[in-house]
Amino acid sequence: MTQDQQPAEHLAEIRRAAVRIGPHVRRTPLLRTDIAPGLMVKPESLQLTGSFKARGAFNAVLSLLEREPDVTGVVTHSSGNHGQALACAARTVGLPATIVVPDGVTPAKVAGIRSFGATVVSDGVTYDNREEIAEEIARSQGLRLIHPYDDWDVVHGAGTVGLEILEDMPSPGAVVVPVGGGGQISGIALAVSVLSPDTAVIGVEPEGAADAVASLRTGVLQSLDADPTTLAEGVKSKSIGGRNFEVMVAGGLVRDIVTVSEHELEGAVRVAWTKLKLAIEPTAALALAAYLTGKVPAGTVEHPTVIVLSGGNFDPATIAALLVT
Amino acid sequence: MTQDQQPAEHLAEIRRAAVRIGPHVRRTPLLRTDIAPGLMVKPESLQLTGSFKARGAFNAVLSLLEREPDVTGVVTHSSGNHGQALACAARTVGLPATIVVPDGVTPAKVAGIRSFGATVVSDGVTYDNREEIAEEIARSQGLRLIHPYDDWDVVHGAGTVGLEILEDMPSPGAVVVPVGGGGQISGIALAVSVLSPDTAVIGVEPEGAADAVASLRTGVLQSLDADPTTLAEGVKSKSIGGRNFEVMVAGGLVRDIVTVSEHELEGAVRVAWTKLKLAIEPTAALALAAYLTGKVPAGTVEHPTVIVLSGGNFDPATIAALLVT
Repeated sequence: MTQDQQPAEHLAEIRRAAVRIGPHVRRTPLLRTDIAPGLMVKPESLQLTGSFKARGAFNAVLSLLEREPDVTGVVTHSSGNHGQALACAARTVGLPATIVVPDGVTPAKVAGIRSFGATVVSDGVTYDNREEIAEEIARSQGLRLIHPYDDWDVVHGAGTVGLEILEDMPSPGAVVVPVGGGGQISGIALAVSVLSPDTAVIGVEPEGAADAVASLRTGVLQSLDADPTTLAEGVKSKSIGGRNFEVMVAGGLVRDIVTVSEHELEGAVRVAWTKLKLAIEPTAALALAAYLTGKVPAGTVEHPTVIVLSGGNFDPATIAALLVT
Repeated sequence: MTQDQQPAEHLAEIRRAAVRIGPHVRRTPLLRTDIAPGLMVKPESLQLTGSFKARGAFNAVLSLLEREPDVTGVVTHSSGNHGQALACAARTVGLPATIVVPDGVTPAKVAGIRSFGATVVSDGVTYDNREEIAEEIARSQGLRLIHPYDDWDVVHGAGTVGLEILEDMPSPGAVVVPVGGGGQISGIALAVSVLSPDTAVIGVEPEGAADAVASLRTGVLQSLDADPTTLAEGVKSKSIGGRNFEVMVAGGLVRDIVTVSEHELEGAVRVAWTKLKLAIEPTAALALAAYLTGKVPAGTVEHPTVIVLSGGNFDPATIAALLVT
């Protein structure tokens, strides 16, 4: 944790974020399922723009306007969901948005970004150079960069997922969250660590993008050497952010990070669709995969395991193929 | 309406049903969507056993046990969802259940019924003779027949959907409900007519199974001549039930019934999955199809149109094909 800001202060920021974004985003339900009595799911796939990213994007844009009323526009890099969310938030407040998207991202996500009137930049963009390109656009065009996860406003917005979970279920045994750059799990961990310290916050990564677990094990920020290959395109960032590292590793607020194979992830997507009846994207099935394979606690009715289903912006052809496998 | 029972008395029964089934079924959320600000959805696909039928089945079985503690078992005929629900309810209270299922129903639904330990009878069963076969089994084996819709306990259980909608949104402009045998819409109409008389309760049928609209237009109970052909397998009953006719037509509690084409229904299934992010079965998309084609009011933020998504027990191959069309 930073020396200048303790979890309780972050929690106060998360509460302010909840008030700030409340009129714009949705309060998603916390649902029991037919899978097990000790399991509950938080379907952020039902969130505005189809993912939890709407929370961080609205908090960042609204906070930015409070601090800098003269801002002329925003830019970000995104594998899709943060891009859609930022495009939506920017349009809502009347700001132009530019989204730098790696080539080859799910067309539905790019179409979603465009539907909110944002400018998409994708020629020559990879998971490797996207941050640099976004920074250059920010510099040259005088736009504000809203980082998809290494940004306190984004983290605090994501933390409202944790607030809502605890409002509906005050003491879950565990809260299990997909980990890409670490924005969502950082925010949730900041809220949960203060309000329900006995609850274990656990991250899940694909085996092919297991940088965060390496950072957690070594205590040093680790990065992947190459672009990862995984069905979970939402967590392809090569390392967690510096602020996210502070919360998750240095601050000790994430109890553990587990990994799942592509095969386990595919099975979880099928279970999500056929048993949970929730049309989620593969990335969002990471926590369910960890649950179904016994890598996280099973939970009880009184202290359930809550899994966060982070988004629903899937590629129809990918899902169609998985459904008939 | 029957001369001996007015809507207010039915509402009292629905309230008793809510208390009776409360410990066993789920309270489903009422959700805003990205489609339109005037639209809200009630996803009964997230209900226990994957459809609203759990409500009526639990109310019927629990009421039966109150009246006849010595009952030895239950039987029903069902295209799948009522069968799964009754099998689940019977197992919960320790009663054997026999479910008569038309040949050719979605295998996932039959597997669901078997997973609750019920006996499935399907050899030689059609949509035409299923009721007769179930009645014969009831007579010969001394079991109680729980009719899938022409049964007041089932209607009152389904009516709890209406109670919950009005708890979350006290005065919707319209509530739009798929119509097969009429169990769900009867229950909802009984609750809504007393609690929010200005709300229009509107039914939706496939063009190929448009018996209820014919009954409504003529004021006389109409039946289809032959087994209907429609993707909406949950509403293939050839006529609404006598009790359902009393509520919907004679009682005047259903404002209108509209029809949708198979093409419109297919489009709505795709929208449900890709925009609502809810994995529903085709039958459950009937009300959405009516909404998307402008056949029911668009609704406003203050007085939205609420559409009931009745279930999520889909055939994966059918959905996979629709997703890539």
